[in-house]
Amino acid sequence: MKLVRYGNPGKEKPGLVDAEGKLRDLSAVVKDIGPAQLGDAALAKIAKLNPAKLPLVKGKPRMGSPVANVGKFIAIGLNYADHAAESGLPIPAEPVVFMKATSCIQGPNDPVMLPKGSKKTDWEVELGVVIGTQARYVSQKDALNFVAGYCTINDVSEREFQIERGGTWDKGKGCDTFGPLGPWLVTRDEVPNPQKLSMWLDVNGKRVQTGNTKTMIFSVAKIVSYVSQFMTLMPGDVITTGTPPGVGLGMKPPVFLKKGDTMALGIEGLGEQHQVVVPFKL
Amino acid sequence: MKLVRYGNPGKEKPGLVDAEGKLRDLSAVVKDIGPAQLGDAALAKIAKLNPAKLPLVKGKPRMGSPVANVGKFIAIGLNYADHAAESGLPIPAEPVVFMKATSCIQGPNDPVMLPKGSKKTDWEVELGVVIGTQARYVSQKDALNFVAGYCTINDVSEREFQIERGGTWDKGKGCDTFGPLGPWLVTRDEVPNPQKLSMWLDVNGKRVQTGNTKTMIFSVAKIVSYVSQFMTLMPGDVITTGTPPGVGLGMKPPVFLKKGDTMALGIEGLGEQHQVVVPFKL
Repeated sequence: MKLVRYGNPGKEKPGLVDAEGKLRDLSAVVKDIGPAQLGDAALAKIAKLNPAKLPLVKGKPRMGSPVANVGKFIAIGLNYADHAAESGLPIPAEPVVFMKATSCIQGPNDPVMLPKGSKKTDWEVELGVVIGTQARYVSQKDALNFVAGYCTINDVSEREFQIERGGTWDKGKGCDTFGPLGPWLVTRDEVPNPQKLSMWLDVNGKRVQTGNTKTMIFSVAKIVSYVSQFMTLMPGDVITTGTPPGVGLGMKPPVFLKKGDTMALGIEGLGEQHQVVVPFKL
Repeated sequence: MKLVRYGNPGKEKPGLVDAEGKLRDLSAVVKDIGPAQLGDAALAKIAKLNPAKLPLVKGKPRMGSPVANVGKFIAIGLNYADHAAESGLPIPAEPVVFMKATSCIQGPNDPVMLPKGSKKTDWEVELGVVIGTQARYVSQKDALNFVAGYCTINDVSEREFQIERGGTWDKGKGCDTFGPLGPWLVTRDEVPNPQKLSMWLDVNGKRVQTGNTKTMIFSVAKIVSYVSQFMTLMPGDVITTGTPPGVGLGMKPPVFLKKGDTMALGIEGLGEQHQVVVPFKL
């Protein structure tokens, strides 16, 4: 299934995209697409519905994040060997874990705002993993059973805040609008192999990132298992799993986003995002 | 006011502790003590009540975290000059910001569990700041107006996970039970100067940390203002503001927590916590 949340910010309704690509409303079935709707039993209940009998949504509403009330927004750094190389950093011996502020989450096509004083805002197409079932110390073998599904994420990053302002990376990763999620939460039954998904990102129509999850250093199963050793993963938690090569920081000379730039990005089977970069505004 | 949440985990009820130290139930007045109850108007409504007319709670119920549904649990590192020195790290030029997983939050007297394989679990008494009003790019001068109140926090930390496992500190800071909050959320009107609060922590009855918020490198107002430049602070977000000297890592040789150890800690006017250290259990 392709689950979505559509409508104005803060007033999104639950929906699904049917096999013909039509948006159907789920408001009469579930209250939202959030922690309480992401477990296997809850998803099975939605899967049993006949989409053709759900109300068709007219027009082209805004898409919100396909997951509401994300409790933790966890991120894995340097998870593609080529990206580690372009960042001038060694391949990590174990996953690099940091956190994005949940307040940065937004819809897939909402504008991305440059933070005040930002000179180094950058892009990162990433595979997002949405937790469906509470996971504590789960084995790599079992890990994917705790996943509700997958989504496209742009792990927008401010490199000066991330790298040059002392301390951990968290400062440059959680600015408002830095977490476009979606358009869809694609349930895991439709992604039989998360390690074989092509991904891409264009800036101003020019392809800058091309990758495939098959070149991840640490697989999705490894990451879910690994993170669950350090903190309990809760339904609705999101893990963004690192980016392939082609970020602005890695270019010679580096290239960063400026007002009016456009980003388009997508992952095979998980849908596309389209963002315009807007200047800082309070 | 001293606001609390009491009762069994996940079923806490809102309450307040009156001038005589008696626990009074607020269930008929507010649904919970969380983001919706922390703004100035919502707090003023509770402040107008006559505590003597609120139902008295019998017995000694468990205390939960005094704040429900914390969206972000932000932490400041190395914010006391003496603690930076004992950690062998330079005084930071600007605040070190990292994040604790919200899933680690628990009541002030709940047991602290050693993570699986942990050998270096450590204590940190800290002043917690609870955000009451959404704060974006707020000035240092105005910052305290966005604070609902203060609480005692034990920023429990696993030093091997934090320092020796690659990447950022977040791995060693968000393990389950690593975020005891409370007992009280003390509203800011009762804490006229957050930079003049004595604080202490005992392990097995022996005083190990003694400090005062007057020796913070970055004040509470500076921290709230600073963090609000990198992410929007939302009602119910909690910032823990760093620890004074006396952590186990800084001892020669280092001392870490083991099964059966007890911790007691407190901050002037904000109440005490008492925890027993328990072994890992799934």
